[in-house]
Amino acid sequence: MQVAVIENVLKANDELAARNRQALRAAGVFALDLIGAPGCGKTALLEATLPLLRPLRVGVIAGDLATQRDADRIAPHAAQVVQVNTGRGCHLEANHVHEAMQRLRLNDLNVLFIENVGNLVCPVGFDLGQDVKVGVFSTAGGDDKAAKHPHLVHAAQLLVVTMSDLQPYVSFNFSRFDEDVRRLNPEVPVLRVSARTGEGLPAWRQWIFDRLDRRAPAATATQPARVVG
Amino acid sequence: MQVAVIENVLKANDELAARNRQALRAAGVFALDLIGAPGCGKTALLEATLPLLRPLRVGVIAGDLATQRDADRIAPHAAQVVQVNTGRGCHLEANHVHEAMQRLRLNDLNVLFIENVGNLVCPVGFDLGQDVKVGVFSTAGGDDKAAKHPHLVHAAQLLVVTMSDLQPYVSFNFSRFDEDVRRLNPEVPVLRVSARTGEGLPAWRQWIFDRLDRRAPAATATQPARVVG
Repeated sequence: MQVAVIENVLKANDELAARNRQALRAAGVFALDLIGAPGCGKTALLEATLPLLRPLRVGVIAGDLATQRDADRIAPHAAQVVQVNTGRGCHLEANHVHEAMQRLRLNDLNVLFIENVGNLVCPVGFDLGQDVKVGVFSTAGGDDKAAKHPHLVHAAQLLVVTMSDLQPYVSFNFSRFDEDVRRLNPEVPVLRVSARTGEGLPAWRQWIFDRLDRRAPAATATQPARVVG
Repeated sequence: MQVAVIENVLKANDELAARNRQALRAAGVFALDLIGAPGCGKTALLEATLPLLRPLRVGVIAGDLATQRDADRIAPHAAQVVQVNTGRGCHLEANHVHEAMQRLRLNDLNVLFIENVGNLVCPVGFDLGQDVKVGVFSTAGGDDKAAKHPHLVHAAQLLVVTMSDLQPYVSFNFSRFDEDVRRLNPEVPVLRVSARTGEGLPAWRQWIFDRLDRRAPAATATQPARVVG
């Protein structure tokens, strides 16, 4: 019985995620689901990234159990921000994103970052309607975290290792991390970045723009003005 | 129906946790459940702590989705180690600990650390049979994490902030963190430690010994030889 209940929950989630995806595509919005541990630097990465994406218009849905601190930090840099508080919920589900989307003017956005609840496990299994999942790790979090979280490494279209400026002070071995990643997902790119020094941010920005360029020509051709903000 | 299923799961968990607790107390073992984000330094803290606890005999149950890397790191320092791999499971439950306990010689232990799966949310609600829950945060993880994880701050008997040596390189404000903690849990002690420099480890060691001393006199009086290892 428990299995049946969980299957129904996931099925309902997937149906709503499909509707989110349809609405985002119709509005020409490219959506990234950022998944990483609490404290891996997701919000700091967004604070550093958003100014680099101009003239794109960027929205952010920030998920946390409590507080609206992430939304407050991101607000100065984003066109639109919605904070979702999940209470005891350990991940965002499609219905959280669906509700948040009702509070966004999607037609005024080019990119939507969904900053998931800080958690390397539970968010992986829930489709939100995003275009890509980005796995976020930090040097301070240790080079063993890819191996310990194979499902995220499998599911992600990109992995970002934050806090590269801390590497001299922590024992993070990039070769070891890369080896674990390759074993689990030979294709996924890995970017090293530092929100503090700016290292790697141009490559991260470029990855996002490349993805936008690769979108269905119909979608971009009919809405060329949107990218000019 | 879903609520009923979840209630049944929690009820079964609590019953098994009570049995775990009974077995641990009968053997005179003091059990700590370490709860913290992936990469907050739980394993590094144990590596640094275990040598300081001699002549106590210490066992460790290490929880992770995959790999036995934590057990391998801890093995040189602990009397007994069991690695639990949860697969897709985001937290330890009482049955994981129960099964692990079958592989431990409890009568040869004084202290048992249960290193939970790296996760600041899901482990909080599951009683394992521990004596105390210890919430582990890191300076690199940011000073906002207590406010964002109120349930852990409520539930913990101690909070430890690791990586105090990284404070010059990250923007962790201890006053701000303490303020959030006090608002949520006025009583819980907060210790700053560094596994790297050893800062704060004597206070952490002392906290554990104080807890051992405070245990039921009957338990310690009948088993005085156990502490001499």
